[in-house]
Amino acid sequence: MRRGFIQVYTGNGKGKTTAAIGLAIRAAGAGLRILFVQFVKGMKYNEIDALKRFSDCISVHQYGTGCFIKNKPQDEDIEIARTGLLEVQSELLNGQYDLVILDEANIAIHFGLFKVEELLKVIASRKPECEIVITGRCAPKELIDAADLVTEMKEIKHYYNKGIQARDGIEC
Amino acid sequence: MRRGFIQVYTGNGKGKTTAAIGLAIRAAGAGLRILFVQFVKGMKYNEIDALKRFSDCISVHQYGTGCFIKNKPQDEDIEIARTGLLEVQSELLNGQYDLVILDEANIAIHFGLFKVEELLKVIASRKPECEIVITGRCAPKELIDAADLVTEMKEIKHYYNKGIQARDGIEC
Repeated sequence: MRRGFIQVYTGNGKGKTTAAIGLAIRAAGAGLRILFVQFVKGMKYNEIDALKRFSDCISVHQYGTGCFIKNKPQDEDIEIARTGLLEVQSELLNGQYDLVILDEANIAIHFGLFKVEELLKVIASRKPECEIVITGRCAPKELIDAADLVTEMKEIKHYYNKGIQARDGIEC
Repeated sequence: MRRGFIQVYTGNGKGKTTAAIGLAIRAAGAGLRILFVQFVKGMKYNEIDALKRFSDCISVHQYGTGCFIKNKPQDEDIEIARTGLLEVQSELLNGQYDLVILDEANIAIHFGLFKVEELLKVIASRKPECEIVITGRCAPKELIDAADLVTEMKEIKHYYNKGIQARDGIEC
């Protein structure tokens, strides 16, 4: 039986969530069953809409208020993230998914919505062949230590620096 | 009118093609028209199969022999890549796509299948609002200079180093 690994995509560059979407699509093409969970963001993105075409094999759940967390998270931010983590645990114990993507889980940890130890405990409850993908800036050291694959998306050049805003269908 | 940028995803880490797939999916969710061109690889990947669900908005073309180029490219490798580049130019002049992805174009340049100056000339023929995404290791300096956004996917940790092979639906 193939062992499922833990993949982490972090760093300040673009492409973390988009790579996670790509991984979900590739796995769907191979007939795998995918759970795509998005923490913190909770907003309606074009990619989430597009994933609906794969509703037979990709389940999408968002656990965020839709409001950007600036400094200190609100009780509601914490509650919704913790609910999400519990539901992920329940799905992992259930064992019906081959690939589980926890988009922006690093950010949820960074803002203290849940702890890295809690996330690692949840991940440990998966069936052995289940692959885990975790994205977001500021991946904690404990997660990097536990991961099998870590990629840093590093910003080399970015037009945001020129003061240009995100565009519909391209960045969001 | 929105100006289309040049995005480059390079580096030795994972996530370049998967991010390109994610960008295509996001753009499809926004109702844009996408051309996804893959150079060099030419093999049948799960993600290419999955993209077929978007055949109403994403066109996929592969220009590779399906054989891995080890040292020196064969005449056939060069011919198929150059045919691809010409067809991309024709599509860009035609102007029907909002997002054009040139997956592994950096590798095509690296192996001398075409020159970076040729690629830049082709890109310059696009309609102003068309976004270009170029992926592959070893992005040449001239392309980085011309790009608006450059992300380096940097390998921090990889289980390939432990001698484990790519798995169907996860890496390929």
